[in-house]
Amino acid sequence: MLKESHVDVLIIGAGPSGLMCANALAGAGVDFRIIDNRPVGVAAGQADGIQPRTIEVLQSYGLAEPLLKEGAQMHLCAFYNPGPDGGIERTGRAADVTAPTARYPFKITIAQASIEALFIESLKSQGISVDRPIVPSSLEISQDPAELLDPSSYPVKVVLDHIHSSDDTPEQEIVHAKFVVGADGAHSWVRKTLGFTMDGEQTDYIWGVIDFIPDTNFPDIRNRSAIHSENGSCMIIPREGDKVRFYLQMSDKDVMDPETGRIDKQKVTAENLINTARRTFYPYIVNEPKEVDWCSIYIIGQRVASKFSKHDRVFIAGDACHTHSPKAGQGMNASMNDTHNLAWKLAQVLRGRADISLLKTYELERQKYAQDLIDFDREFSALFSGKPRTSENQEGVTHEEFLSAFQASGGFSSGIGVHYMPSAIVDTIHQGSASNIIIGERMLPQMFVRAADARPTEIQDMLPADTRFKLLFFVGLLTSEQLTKVRRLAEELELPTSFLQKYNFPAQGKAQSTFDIISIAAGHKDDVNFLDIPSTLRTHWSKVLIDDTDVTGRLGGGAYPRFGIDEKEITIVVVRPDGYVGMIAPSTALESMDKYFGSFLIGKTLNREA
Amino acid sequence: MLKESHVDVLIIGAGPSGLMCANALAGAGVDFRIIDNRPVGVAAGQADGIQPRTIEVLQSYGLAEPLLKEGAQMHLCAFYNPGPDGGIERTGRAADVTAPTARYPFKITIAQASIEALFIESLKSQGISVDRPIVPSSLEISQDPAELLDPSSYPVKVVLDHIHSSDDTPEQEIVHAKFVVGADGAHSWVRKTLGFTMDGEQTDYIWGVIDFIPDTNFPDIRNRSAIHSENGSCMIIPREGDKVRFYLQMSDKDVMDPETGRIDKQKVTAENLINTARRTFYPYIVNEPKEVDWCSIYIIGQRVASKFSKHDRVFIAGDACHTHSPKAGQGMNASMNDTHNLAWKLAQVLRGRADISLLKTYELERQKYAQDLIDFDREFSALFSGKPRTSENQEGVTHEEFLSAFQASGGFSSGIGVHYMPSAIVDTIHQGSASNIIIGERMLPQMFVRAADARPTEIQDMLPADTRFKLLFFVGLLTSEQLTKVRRLAEELELPTSFLQKYNFPAQGKAQSTFDIISIAAGHKDDVNFLDIPSTLRTHWSKVLIDDTDVTGRLGGGAYPRFGIDEKEITIVVVRPDGYVGMIAPSTALESMDKYFGSFLIGKTLNREA
Repeated sequence: MLKESHVDVLIIGAGPSGLMCANALAGAGVDFRIIDNRPVGVAAGQADGIQPRTIEVLQSYGLAEPLLKEGAQMHLCAFYNPGPDGGIERTGRAADVTAPTARYPFKITIAQASIEALFIESLKSQGISVDRPIVPSSLEISQDPAELLDPSSYPVKVVLDHIHSSDDTPEQEIVHAKFVVGADGAHSWVRKTLGFTMDGEQTDYIWGVIDFIPDTNFPDIRNRSAIHSENGSCMIIPREGDKVRFYLQMSDKDVMDPETGRIDKQKVTAENLINTARRTFYPYIVNEPKEVDWCSIYIIGQRVASKFSKHDRVFIAGDACHTHSPKAGQGMNASMNDTHNLAWKLAQVLRGRADISLLKTYELERQKYAQDLIDFDREFSALFSGKPRTSENQEGVTHEEFLSAFQASGGFSSGIGVHYMPSAIVDTIHQGSASNIIIGERMLPQMFVRAADARPTEIQDMLPADTRFKLLFFVGLLTSEQLTKVRRLAEELELPTSFLQKYNFPAQGKAQSTFDIISIAAGHKDDVNFLDIPSTLRTHWSKVLIDDTDVTGRLGGGAYPRFGIDEKEITIVVVRPDGYVGMIAPSTALESMDKYFGSFLIGKTLNREA
Repeated sequence: MLKESHVDVLIIGAGPSGLMCANALAGAGVDFRIIDNRPVGVAAGQADGIQPRTIEVLQSYGLAEPLLKEGAQMHLCAFYNPGPDGGIERTGRAADVTAPTARYPFKITIAQASIEALFIESLKSQGISVDRPIVPSSLEISQDPAELLDPSSYPVKVVLDHIHSSDDTPEQEIVHAKFVVGADGAHSWVRKTLGFTMDGEQTDYIWGVIDFIPDTNFPDIRNRSAIHSENGSCMIIPREGDKVRFYLQMSDKDVMDPETGRIDKQKVTAENLINTARRTFYPYIVNEPKEVDWCSIYIIGQRVASKFSKHDRVFIAGDACHTHSPKAGQGMNASMNDTHNLAWKLAQVLRGRADISLLKTYELERQKYAQDLIDFDREFSALFSGKPRTSENQEGVTHEEFLSAFQASGGFSSGIGVHYMPSAIVDTIHQGSASNIIIGERMLPQMFVRAADARPTEIQDMLPADTRFKLLFFVGLLTSEQLTKVRRLAEELELPTSFLQKYNFPAQGKAQSTFDIISIAAGHKDDVNFLDIPSTLRTHWSKVLIDDTDVTGRLGGGAYPRFGIDEKEITIVVVRPDGYVGMIAPSTALESMDKYFGSFLIGKTLNREA
C-alpha cells in the first residue's frame, strides 16, 4: 500500500524560488508542502547578488534586516580600462544603482546559503521544514475540464520517491495536489515532464568565477569593478566579510580540451583563475590567496521556457524557466520574484476569494519579464565580454558605450524597472489621477509622518506581503469643504453595494482580510487631527499619514506633487499584495474600482450563490 | 561550614542599573555575579521613558533595535491650557526633543520589564543569569590601606542570605569581592549600610499614574501632552501598542485620609484616577476603560546621595543614589548611565591596564550629574505642578514660561547635554583643534562614507561600548603634502615611546585591545584611495572613512566644518569607551596625548616593573 495524501500546494525544489514560495504561503496560512532532492542546501558559492527591488520585497516579508547587516553592500561601481602603458587604469567611479527611486540605493551580496537560511528559519518558526531528500518520479494532470476549473479539486497526482541511502529502494508515496510549483532549477524535472522547451541561445563567452579573500593593492577591491583589459575582462563583486568574487573572462586555451573542443573541468583550478586575474589586473598585484572559498566555470546561456504554466495547475518558477549570466546579478532575484508574484494569487484562489483565472496572470507577467531580462542580459554580456577600444583596436567597446549601457540598464539591474502590462490586475484607465505613480510598477517608496504621533513612516513598510490589497486614500488637504467630500466618500463605501463591502472578507485565522486601508492627508503635523478622518478610512490610529516632514525636517514631505496627486481631490491607489500598483482611481470613479476588483475577486453575493 | 567564594565584582540589584552593569561587564569578560532580592523582575508599570541619549548608549551595546521596534516613540509634545469657555484647548505642538544633535530625535516609552528583559536575554546568551532571591545581610570593607590600593585584593566581604521559602531559615554564604556595586533601588540596603544620606527635599505635589488603553476624542492621545487645566494638570505619555500613561495631579482631598493627614492608598483606585482625568480633560471625553494595566501614586521627592562610593571599592548606582519625579522621564536613564559610566572603568582596572584611581572619576562625574538633574527636575516639576495663568489667576504659570523652560531643558530631558568636567579622563587643553566637538560631552553622531566601499556609516556605530578608547584620526584632505604628514605621523606612532605602543595592550580573550583606530579623510568618494592611509592608521579596510555624501547625496558630508576641524591639519579625537570625548589633540601634540593616557593608564614598561 502506497502512502497517499492530499495537499493544496506541492512545491518541488527548495532553492531561493521554492523557499520564497513556501515562506509566502506559510504566512498566508495555505496548506502546502515543500520537497527537495538534495539531502542539504547549498554550501558555498552560487548566486549571491540581491538587487534593490529584491531587498524591498524581502523587507515586505520582514526578512531584509539580516541581509542589510551581514551582506556586503555595493554602492559604487568602478570602471577600469587599458591605459597608455598597457596596464589598466581607472576611468572613473559611478553609483552602482542608477534607478533614482530605489529605497535601498545599493546591491547586496551574500551567499545563497544565507538567503536560503533566512527562509528556512522563518519556516521553522512556523513549524514547517523542507522534506528532503525526495525525488519526484511522475506527475499527471487531470484532463477533465470541469475538474481543472474547480479550485477545490486535486487534479495533479505526483509520485514521490523518498531517498534513504544509496542502497535502499526508495519508498514511494502519492501526493494529490491542487497546485504544483516546480522550482527545481535549470535542469528542472517538472519542466521536462511538462514538455516545455528552453528557447534561446548558448553564447560562446566562457567565464570563470572564484570566491576568496584577496591580498592586493587594487584600490577598488571593495567596490563592484568592471575591468576591461587587453588581457580579458573581469568583474569584481565584493562579498560579505573580507571576501570578494572575481568573474574572469577565460580564453579557449585556458579551459578547452584541444582534442575534444569541450571544456576540460580539470583545467579550471583556483590557480589557473588567479593567474588569469593577475594578467588582467596588471599593473596591480594580486597575491596568491591563502585559501579559496569556491570556484567554478560557466558558459553564458540566455534562455526562457516556452511556457510557465500548464492548465494553471502546475507552474514552473526560477531557474526552471529562465537562465542567464550571473554578472548582472539577476538570477536569484528573478527567481524569488517569480514566486513572490505567484504566491498571493494561489492564496486568494485557494481561499475562494479570487477566480481561478487570476492564475493566468502569473505566466503573463513573469514570462514577459524573463524575456525582457534575457534580452537585456544578452546585450549587456556582449558589451562586457567584448574587447575594449584601444588605439590598436578601433572596433572595441568604448568606456562611454559601456557606461551609457550600464546607466541605461539601471531599471533592470536594480529590479526597480519591472513593469507589468495591463491585465485583469493591472488597470491603467485612471493613470492621470496620480501621473507619477506608474500603474504596473511597484509602489514608490516615500516617507510620511503618522498623523497621530508624527512618527516618520516609510509607506513601503505599510505594504507588507500579507496577501491584502492596500487601498491608499489620498484624502487631500483637509479643509472643511474637503472633509465634507471625505465623509461623503466614507458613506458611499459603507453601502453594501460598494466594492469595499462586496469584496472585503474579514480575517480568518492566518488569512488576512482582503483589504487594508491607509489614509494619507496633505497638511502639517502641527494642525492635522487624525480623528477628523471618518472611521471607515481610519481602521487604527496608526493608519492615518500626513505628507509632511518629521520633526527634524529631514525625512518626508512633498509626496503629493511628487506623485502627481491633486490636494483638492481624493485619489485612491490600489497596491497589490506583491507591492505593485494595480489601479488608481479618483473617488468619483468608484464604479471603475468595482469593475477592477470584480474582474478577478469573488464578491460576497456571488459567493452565497455558489 | 558556610559556603565561601571570591568574585571580582558583586552587583547587588537587578533593575536597569544593575543589569546594565552586568551586561557591560559580561561583554568585557569580567568575572562578576549579580544578585537580586526579588524572586522575579518587575511586571507592569514602573519607569518607562528612554531618552535619546540612552537610545544611543543602548545602541552602543547592540541593544537599541528591539526598543526602536517595539516601543512607542514620542516625536511631538502638545500643550493644552484653559480656553475661554473653561475647558482646555490646544496652545500648540512642538518637537518633543529639542536637542539639535540627537541621533534619535524622539523619546521611547516601553515597560521597564521589557528593558530588563533585553539585558537578561543578552546575559543569557552569554550563559549568565541573575541569582535570586538573595538578600545581603552584612557588608564589611577592609580598613587596610595597602589592601584597598591593591587592585588584586578582595577587600569587601558580603554575607548573602539565600531565600528559599518564607518558612525556611535562609542559607548563608560569604562572598569576598574586589568591588561591589549597590544598584538596589531607592531604599538601598547598600547605601544605608555605608551610612550615606539622601540629601534633598520632599515636595508636596501628589501625582497619580495610570496605564490603560484609552477611548477618547482627545486629538493628542498619541503625543506626549502637557495639559494645564483649571482642574489640575496632566501629562500624557503614549505607550507601546495602544496603551497610554496618564500622570495626574491629585488634590489632597482625593488621596488624603482627613484624620491622619497621610495618603490613604485605598483612595487611589483606577476609578478615582479616571474621574480626575475626566475633570482635567473637559471638554474632551475620556470613556471608562475596559481594563487598567497598572496604577499608582507618588509624592515627588528629589534627592541625591551624599556619596556614591566608599574607598572606590563599594559603589552605589541608580535609584540608590538619586530619586526624582518620573514626569521628566529621567529615572531609568540616569540609572543605566551610572553603570555605563562605571563598568568600563572597573574592567580596565581589573585587567591591570588602568590605575585604581580611575575609579574616583565615577563619583566625580555621576554625582555632579545627579545634582544638576535634581535641580532641573525641581524647577521643571514646580512649573508643571503649578496652576496655569488665567484671567482669574494672574500669578499662574503662562504657556510661554512653560514652553521656554521645556525647550531650554532639551539637553537635560534628552540626556544629550551630559557634560563631564575636566579630570584625569577629560582633558580640554586642545579644545580649539575641533572647536565644536565638546570635550566631556558624547561624540556627536555624524554620517560618513567608508573609503573602500562608499557605504554610509554612522560614526557612533563605530564606537561600540567595548572598553576600547577610539582614536579618530582626522587626516584631512589627502594632497601629496598632507600624505607626507600622515606618513610621518604613522612613523612616530610606531616608535616604542609613542603612547600608542606604550598603552595599547592587544586583545586577550574577551578583553579587547586598549585602542581602536579610525581614520577620517576629507575629499570625495570618487577619488580617495583608502590604501593611501598608512597601515598603522588603517587596521582594516572598513576603518577608513571619508567626509562625503553617499551615492544619493542625502547622507553624510560636511563634518570637517561642522566639527570645526581644519582639513590641512591632522586632528586626533579620543573617544572614551562610554562614547564621551576625553581629549582632542593636533598631531603635533603627541606629548599631550601621552600625558593624558599616562595619567590613568598603566604603560607596558611600568607594568614590567610591577
